[in-house]
Amino acid sequence: MNQQDREYLAKHLSFWRHLTDAERADAEGCTFAAVYPKGKKLYGGNKECLGLVLVESGQLRAFITSKEGKEISLYRLLSLDVCILSASCMIKNLNFDVNIEVEKDSRLFVLPTDCFNRLSNENIAVKNFALELMSARFSEVMWVFDQYVFGTAAGRLARFLLEHSALEDSDTLRVTHEAIANDLGTAREVVTRLLKHFATDNVVALGRSTIQILDKEKLEELGVSQNEV
Amino acid sequence: MNQQDREYLAKHLSFWRHLTDAERADAEGCTFAAVYPKGKKLYGGNKECLGLVLVESGQLRAFITSKEGKEISLYRLLSLDVCILSASCMIKNLNFDVNIEVEKDSRLFVLPTDCFNRLSNENIAVKNFALELMSARFSEVMWVFDQYVFGTAAGRLARFLLEHSALEDSDTLRVTHEAIANDLGTAREVVTRLLKHFATDNVVALGRSTIQILDKEKLEELGVSQNEV
Repeated sequence: MNQQDREYLAKHLSFWRHLTDAERADAEGCTFAAVYPKGKKLYGGNKECLGLVLVESGQLRAFITSKEGKEISLYRLLSLDVCILSASCMIKNLNFDVNIEVEKDSRLFVLPTDCFNRLSNENIAVKNFALELMSARFSEVMWVFDQYVFGTAAGRLARFLLEHSALEDSDTLRVTHEAIANDLGTAREVVTRLLKHFATDNVVALGRSTIQILDKEKLEELGVSQNEV
Repeated sequence: MNQQDREYLAKHLSFWRHLTDAERADAEGCTFAAVYPKGKKLYGGNKECLGLVLVESGQLRAFITSKEGKEISLYRLLSLDVCILSASCMIKNLNFDVNIEVEKDSRLFVLPTDCFNRLSNENIAVKNFALELMSARFSEVMWVFDQYVFGTAAGRLARFLLEHSALEDSDTLRVTHEAIANDLGTAREVVTRLLKHFATDNVVALGRSTIQILDKEKLEELGVSQNEV
């Protein structure tokens, strides 16, 4: 690990400045940076328990799957975000099935499980970091849960379009109805029907393989509606 | 707090034995025991942030609600269980709407927020206790989430009947279809239809205001089925 990487960790992992010199030397010695290609599974199923992951660049996605392979996205991790579920095995009582995959080519810093475990059992700031991060993810999942059990498919689609527009920094999205359906855990037909409905209302314009967002305000309005499923 | 209560806390809060003498004196001084009546809201909406709660006897329920008042139970807390969401305000990044209510008259030990906060910032065992408890609740909620988005209404009802049979220690449940519907976040008509279906299959027998469980094995089978909603 070079000086630039060490400075990056010190700057972006809030517990770093609370480490003792010995702990910091330990952390710098065990942490590694690596590039992971799009599509790589970081965690889930029979995969090993990687450790704490800090995203330098790229994009990760956490999602759950049904037995039939239906997927529901829980949240995405972008630059500077930290993934703690990839260190699930070191946290007692944390035992649910979640998948974490690389959604865009990513450069990640990894604190392997045993190393992160050692630091968090020595230093209360590291333990607190884990608690706050866990609480943040718990809160995100509760929001998604709330949307699923109380929200509408239209609202979910509206939020999907807004989120991806922000992620891509573009009002024109290149994404298939199939991919949206997978992300939302619904059927492709439902997505196609809803998008046509949105297009009729001039909220979006549908191209051959694009969705252009025309009315963000309306999408935001749809996104916060809280009707029955 | 009398000697018996102090011994109870030392025995049933796993971090207690890791406290220093000064911390233990602090904890004993701030913790109080109180009886809360059935129906009392412990947390949620505009309610204050109570603190860490250890259930000595009784039953608490954690649930989320929609704007229309639809409720979904997340989990129940019985004797020896500890509630951490009632101390949500002291945990950074934990910010979702959950309600905790007393479901049966309960005697509770409460470590008020500022006291629990002080202990957990001093003592890594207390911080770890908070992390493990948060992870346990996160895992429980993920299970419920999974059931909701991937499970069937019949499966949910089957699990409800089994859970309540265990809670009441009886195969004859006195519960209205309305109450079940509220718990499951579905309509009363759906519950009535499903129960009739269960009765036709000799899984339950329906009385005037009772549901008698006839075939637990079948209910368990239904409870683990993972079909589409």
